[in-house]
Amino acid sequence: MLGSTYGTTLTTDSRRTRVVACGESLPPAVHGSAATTGDLDVSGRPLNASVPDLDRLFRPESVAVVGASDAEGRPNTGITRQLLSWAERVGARLHPVHPTRQSVFGIPCFPSVRDLPEQVDLAVLLVADPLPVIEELAETKAKFAVAFASGFAETGEAGAAAQDRLAAAVERSGIRLLGPNTNLNAFERFRDDLDGPAIALITQSGHQGRPVFALQELGIRLSHWAPTGNEADLETADFISYFAEQPEVGAIACYVEGLKDGRSFLLAADRAARRGVPVVAVKVGRTETGARTAASHTGKLTGADAVVDAAMRQYGVIRVDGLDELQDTAALLARARKPVADGVVVYSISGGTGAHFSDLAVQAGLKLPTLSDAKQAELHQWIPEYLNVANPVDNGGHPVGDWRGRKIIDAILDDPSVGVLICPITGPFPPMSDKLAQDLVDAAERTDKLVCVVWGSPVGTEDAYRKTLLGSSRVATFRTFANCITAVRAHLDHHRFTAAYRSPFDEAPRTASPACRKAQALMRPGRQLSEHAAKQLLRTYGIRVPREQLVTSAAAAVRAAGLVGYPVVMKASGTQLAHKTELGLVKVGLTSASQVRDAYRELTDIARFEGITLDGVLVCQMVERGVEMVVGVTQDPLFGPTVTVGLGGVLVEVMRDAAVRVPPFGEDQARAMLGELRGRALLDGVRGAPPADVDALVEVVLRVQRMALELGDDLAELDINPLMVLPRGQGAVALDALAVCR
Amino acid sequence: MLGSTYGTTLTTDSRRTRVVACGESLPPAVHGSAATTGDLDVSGRPLNASVPDLDRLFRPESVAVVGASDAEGRPNTGITRQLLSWAERVGARLHPVHPTRQSVFGIPCFPSVRDLPEQVDLAVLLVADPLPVIEELAETKAKFAVAFASGFAETGEAGAAAQDRLAAAVERSGIRLLGPNTNLNAFERFRDDLDGPAIALITQSGHQGRPVFALQELGIRLSHWAPTGNEADLETADFISYFAEQPEVGAIACYVEGLKDGRSFLLAADRAARRGVPVVAVKVGRTETGARTAASHTGKLTGADAVVDAAMRQYGVIRVDGLDELQDTAALLARARKPVADGVVVYSISGGTGAHFSDLAVQAGLKLPTLSDAKQAELHQWIPEYLNVANPVDNGGHPVGDWRGRKIIDAILDDPSVGVLICPITGPFPPMSDKLAQDLVDAAERTDKLVCVVWGSPVGTEDAYRKTLLGSSRVATFRTFANCITAVRAHLDHHRFTAAYRSPFDEAPRTASPACRKAQALMRPGRQLSEHAAKQLLRTYGIRVPREQLVTSAAAAVRAAGLVGYPVVMKASGTQLAHKTELGLVKVGLTSASQVRDAYRELTDIARFEGITLDGVLVCQMVERGVEMVVGVTQDPLFGPTVTVGLGGVLVEVMRDAAVRVPPFGEDQARAMLGELRGRALLDGVRGAPPADVDALVEVVLRVQRMALELGDDLAELDINPLMVLPRGQGAVALDALAVCR
Repeated sequence: MLGSTYGTTLTTDSRRTRVVACGESLPPAVHGSAATTGDLDVSGRPLNASVPDLDRLFRPESVAVVGASDAEGRPNTGITRQLLSWAERVGARLHPVHPTRQSVFGIPCFPSVRDLPEQVDLAVLLVADPLPVIEELAETKAKFAVAFASGFAETGEAGAAAQDRLAAAVERSGIRLLGPNTNLNAFERFRDDLDGPAIALITQSGHQGRPVFALQELGIRLSHWAPTGNEADLETADFISYFAEQPEVGAIACYVEGLKDGRSFLLAADRAARRGVPVVAVKVGRTETGARTAASHTGKLTGADAVVDAAMRQYGVIRVDGLDELQDTAALLARARKPVADGVVVYSISGGTGAHFSDLAVQAGLKLPTLSDAKQAELHQWIPEYLNVANPVDNGGHPVGDWRGRKIIDAILDDPSVGVLICPITGPFPPMSDKLAQDLVDAAERTDKLVCVVWGSPVGTEDAYRKTLLGSSRVATFRTFANCITAVRAHLDHHRFTAAYRSPFDEAPRTASPACRKAQALMRPGRQLSEHAAKQLLRTYGIRVPREQLVTSAAAAVRAAGLVGYPVVMKASGTQLAHKTELGLVKVGLTSASQVRDAYRELTDIARFEGITLDGVLVCQMVERGVEMVVGVTQDPLFGPTVTVGLGGVLVEVMRDAAVRVPPFGEDQARAMLGELRGRALLDGVRGAPPADVDALVEVVLRVQRMALELGDDLAELDINPLMVLPRGQGAVALDALAVCR
Repeated sequence: MLGSTYGTTLTTDSRRTRVVACGESLPPAVHGSAATTGDLDVSGRPLNASVPDLDRLFRPESVAVVGASDAEGRPNTGITRQLLSWAERVGARLHPVHPTRQSVFGIPCFPSVRDLPEQVDLAVLLVADPLPVIEELAETKAKFAVAFASGFAETGEAGAAAQDRLAAAVERSGIRLLGPNTNLNAFERFRDDLDGPAIALITQSGHQGRPVFALQELGIRLSHWAPTGNEADLETADFISYFAEQPEVGAIACYVEGLKDGRSFLLAADRAARRGVPVVAVKVGRTETGARTAASHTGKLTGADAVVDAAMRQYGVIRVDGLDELQDTAALLARARKPVADGVVVYSISGGTGAHFSDLAVQAGLKLPTLSDAKQAELHQWIPEYLNVANPVDNGGHPVGDWRGRKIIDAILDDPSVGVLICPITGPFPPMSDKLAQDLVDAAERTDKLVCVVWGSPVGTEDAYRKTLLGSSRVATFRTFANCITAVRAHLDHHRFTAAYRSPFDEAPRTASPACRKAQALMRPGRQLSEHAAKQLLRTYGIRVPREQLVTSAAAAVRAAGLVGYPVVMKASGTQLAHKTELGLVKVGLTSASQVRDAYRELTDIARFEGITLDGVLVCQMVERGVEMVVGVTQDPLFGPTVTVGLGGVLVEVMRDAAVRVPPFGEDQARAMLGELRGRALLDGVRGAPPADVDALVEVVLRVQRMALELGDDLAELDINPLMVLPRGQGAVALDALAVCR
């Protein structure tokens, strides 16, 4: 455990003080668009999401339909009809609003929302321009509005401006808005005959949510569908926070094209993680093309995908790529109980199927414990001796057809090492597979353990699948090996993650450290700092840099070398310098005054020749060899400052072997970053090298995080390259640094 | 283009000579178990697969059923009944054989195969021990036998020995055997009402083939199913070769747990590649667990997975992981015509769906060309102006419901940049999706281009899916985005691969080079060569090594340094040495006689201290810096010698950044290996370094291949580490080498 979680011990005493010590230079705006409570971190970003009460959005007692129609052939007529039928079903009072109609489908119509007979919970706006209606609604104290109109941010700049005006009107009104550019998905006909925990669905595209909604036809319960549209007000994050509090919700499934605000999303994910509610998400934007298309579709910003990926992992959000994975994973996580063990047994009527499934399962990181000799002997009571029952368990087919089938399943489920039983059935053969399916369903009713079946037939009309397996809410049924493995892995990961979860927001720094004020004094707005200044910045935050002096004459260089201690390194220093090594602007291993004098002349000659203005030459202590790393800060348009750590030198340049995190994060995440590096073995010491001082490296990452949070947007970019990580116990030294101020 | 394809120009003249110059020391056995014609490469492995004529196995006119039964409750009764019904259907004459029965199901029964009334094409052996029947059958000149019995190699050592005896009897008999441990899959009831190119299926597990067989219920034609069982005789490779020659076969789908012989498989894959017939395979063994299980299931050797992967890619075999991918990919490749362009257009009724699909497609390497302005203008005749039609094409929904729907599809298919149209339909909405499905089916009938649909609903009972889409043999229908993308990618890759394919067997070296005899003289059976000897081996094959001398006194070291030229490197040399650097047994940059003398003493002192016997000290020319690579040879139990190239130094140790190939391979594959390296940019020159001499590196890889082929199994291991690749035009030098003789 390090001295501090957030990278410096300087502020331990003042952490709870609400005064932002050097906050004057930070942007005054509160980041984050979802409703948040007052508490802010030192970068001015909120630390808590307030959960909107959306009960009356999803279950309104009174609804106004603005632009209602019963005229043949008009699109609004279909929508009005659907709302009417929905209102009847749920017992809501519905009031059509139309400037000229007397009645719609026989219900009295009101000329404007001002004339409504009661304060409505929800106004559905079917008009082309929702803005004036929002302003009128404000007077009526309506709670929610849903705007169908399109032509906003999804269409370009003019649309985005219109959306901004709409958002401002909504904020003034006190009404919470769903949309614009949304639809009736929230008011679909949900099946009410299904029991158990449900999936709550959030989508930025109605069509993309359709397959998840259709899961109800396979017996999977769905409780809500939030089609967020352009998110002028209510956004994905609001629905995550709200759904995480609903007792009937077992999992939240999201289809996201672009996040409105990074911090809101993280706060919502944090809330779900604290409550142990799994969030499964497809997030478009793996590639530039996808991102571009997504942006043009929803008018929202898509952040760099690696940052999105890291941010989701930090908060346990399960990211999947396909809608089929979204369905299968969300369905399993919604319904499966907490795992009692993480051992998976694969049970099959074919050795081939067991071998194939196990191969893919182990590759995906599932644990397949070898069953004990006693358990194997027990299984061999019913399974011929020559078959493998160690795990995978191969029953050879015949035993499933009679009384032995159920015995085998119960014996496997009875084993304490087993948390999950997976039975892949690739070929339906009714005399065997029908009985097997029924036995699995029956056994699942009598166990707390997870029972999964893969129904591998591409046909999918078989009774054992449609009736027996889908008829059970205790058996998780899949159609492919891959989706079963993905979902089971996510299920076990989710429970492992939430069991260990500590919210980083609880310990995020709220006030600036004394270092911040000193650092601010070093910043040069709009400019890149010289290496020397950038290193002073690091030193301010307690990050070690070599002894060094900036000199402007050969004589001063010799004096500096004496003070720094031979051998020395000499480098040209200037605000516009990059690629010093390639230009020959670095001299290493200088051991005498004459070498130092020569080096000074050579460096200044090269700079003159290249037309580079220097602020001097750095005479630096030469640091012994260690593992070269890179630690840096980049501003992500969605999440703000991000911290990156990677292998240095050629490795970071060629292999791009780096890990990223979105602050705030704790020491656990800093260590996890190192674990993600493909070349992490370098830190353990290879080829006889001693293990590197990983604690010191982690401390640097945390101090850099602290700096990134405190300097906020002012620090456009920071790059420590290389950070020389010395052998264990000896620390880490920033040999070079680059800092760009906004 | 290099001087030679296989790594040395020394044998150009003698390549066609059939005499193996130094073959005496090679194992005399012909490698490869499938029937092969006589031509051998220099390692003694066959260069041609002879294609077995299996017509009468799959379509026998006369069949004996040995062990036939009609007794109630006996397993053989069910099998006999199935065979009878099958024989009736295909018009084959069936003869039951049983020692005591007079008739079976009313058909006269013969006491033994010797008593059969005619020479049968096929004998189905339902007896526990097929060996004696094989011996009797040999006298009757039967062509094929199928053995159902289990208890052979899949059960352990005793079983493996029994299988060897069976295999020997089969070889003596002249009969070709399918099995043992197989079943009736070859004689299933295939649908004969389906047209067009078919899938031929090969499986080592009946259950695992079942879903592919079931594709017939979705309208996909299947022509054959070879359940190869334990492959005592006929193996997967034989069936690939045979199926590749059948005119009705459009693609070959394989489920493989272990390959019987690497070379047979490659020769069969080569044959399919030459004929342009795609082979799609699931190969179990991604992980050790999977491999272990596979071995215990089929009693066959599972090679290291990376080698299997590389070997498959060399011959264009499309490896997939899931049975669902196997089905979808094989079905597409069997039926799709040759692509006219590789541009993919994604067309959807939802911008979200288009964005999501495109994101995944681009990530998978598909090309989504931006449609021309003219084409976009054409599409905007029918699609509202604010929707994106650049690609993905978003129609917004409504146009598909009327006459515009078909116009849009035709206009897209009409574009010369488009080879593939993919329409993902995630949510069925009958007024739109039924019409859309029908329009796609109709349009597909009138184009040579590929039309794919993803029916994303998890329900799968919708008419548009079951009747319209599956009813069309011209539309490829998928259930998930991922499988559609995998299959389309495989389709485009397959045609690109076969268009450029040149069989490496045509140019594989048949005779040993003069270098071989010299190399043989350097080999020390059962021992590791000293660095000096290993470098001599390299020199024999024209691979450059530094000037160096092996010395055994300080004085000799100084003399050698004078001859080699200062500065020099000195290294301890011995047959048991490894990790020289870690032990301090390498001294670099020695510039004077006194430094050489000191180094000599220090090296011999360390060796004495460590208890290492030296054969002397190497005084080597110091080679300037370049890119450090590793080139090596490893013996794979399945494929024989393999050649590996990787990034050297810490990179290969920590990042395992290497590529492998199975000989024979040409220069194209050697270059492709470099392309697979994650750190390949190092060869192009980073941080101001000049580009490396890639041609010289490729030449070394090819010369190492030649050495591996000529020395065969005698060279257990070779490791050039590092191979210093100098700047372009300056060659590559093997700075250190390790060779282990068998």
